[in-house]
Amino acid sequence: MSDATTAEKRYYLDDLAVGQRFSSGSRTLSAEEIKSFAREFDPQPFHLDEAAARETFFQGLAASGWHAAAIAMSLMVRGGLPIAGGIIGAGGEIAWRKPIRPGDTLHVETEIIEVTPSRSKPDRGTVVARSDTINQHGEIVQTLTPRLIVPRRPT
Amino acid sequence: MSDATTAEKRYYLDDLAVGQRFSSGSRTLSAEEIKSFAREFDPQPFHLDEAAARETFFQGLAASGWHAAAIAMSLMVRGGLPIAGGIIGAGGEIAWRKPIRPGDTLHVETEIIEVTPSRSKPDRGTVVARSDTINQHGEIVQTLTPRLIVPRRPT
Repeated sequence: MSDATTAEKRYYLDDLAVGQRFSSGSRTLSAEEIKSFAREFDPQPFHLDEAAARETFFQGLAASGWHAAAIAMSLMVRGGLPIAGGIIGAGGEIAWRKPIRPGDTLHVETEIIEVTPSRSKPDRGTVVARSDTINQHGEIVQTLTPRLIVPRRPT
Repeated sequence: MSDATTAEKRYYLDDLAVGQRFSSGSRTLSAEEIKSFAREFDPQPFHLDEAAARETFFQGLAASGWHAAAIAMSLMVRGGLPIAGGIIGAGGEIAWRKPIRPGDTLHVETEIIEVTPSRSKPDRGTVVARSDTINQHGEIVQTLTPRLIVPRRPT
């Protein structure tokens, strides 16, 4: 994966328009990564142990939703959403739509939904995006709808 | 921190009501933890390096928002929201309200906002909660509004 700072073009608010799309690189998740994240942040049986997970709602080991969110962010920061000044979120919505399983290969496709210059701060604006995390079967496993703070191009 | 499985009472849908409140233990975040999470999931200057961070929007090192979300989850799983069957989220909203700095001590206060039995699945329902992450100054740094899948008490 390339580091975000090596991306060729970085987008200011002025460069973004509704309907623009960006695509990230991909990342494959191992069972050990799922368990390691869960041990620190989400120690529940369905994220920690294959056998215990089979008896739960998830019917098998599944990644923590917060792990899924963090992976989406890592893919966007590493070139999947090349915003000038970096990816700075004020908040947003998240929906977990299907379990993420060991061995899944994920990438993120982002579409720009709203672009709103700030009325009070002339150097920035707000962008709403929809970022779908998609697995190797083409299934959307997570949809994130972040509100981002994006700088205007310096004049 | 106690493990969630040692919590005395676990709440089924039938035990939850609008306005009920739960409080978590607390956790202090170091600069190294902030940087370590960022190196893996959110490698941007304001999460990685004190000096570089001073020149950014955050004006100093700040935790990744996804680190903040994961910490809130860890506090809820470890006794802060003792739901029977575990904390299973379908999604929700997140708002990052203030930066989280190195040395901050965080806890989570959760209030139950909605309790809705499923019409199609008699063994479960949906709960909406509001979970504020609060720092040592009493400031709300993050508000998470999860939609949770909660089992009904077995009859």
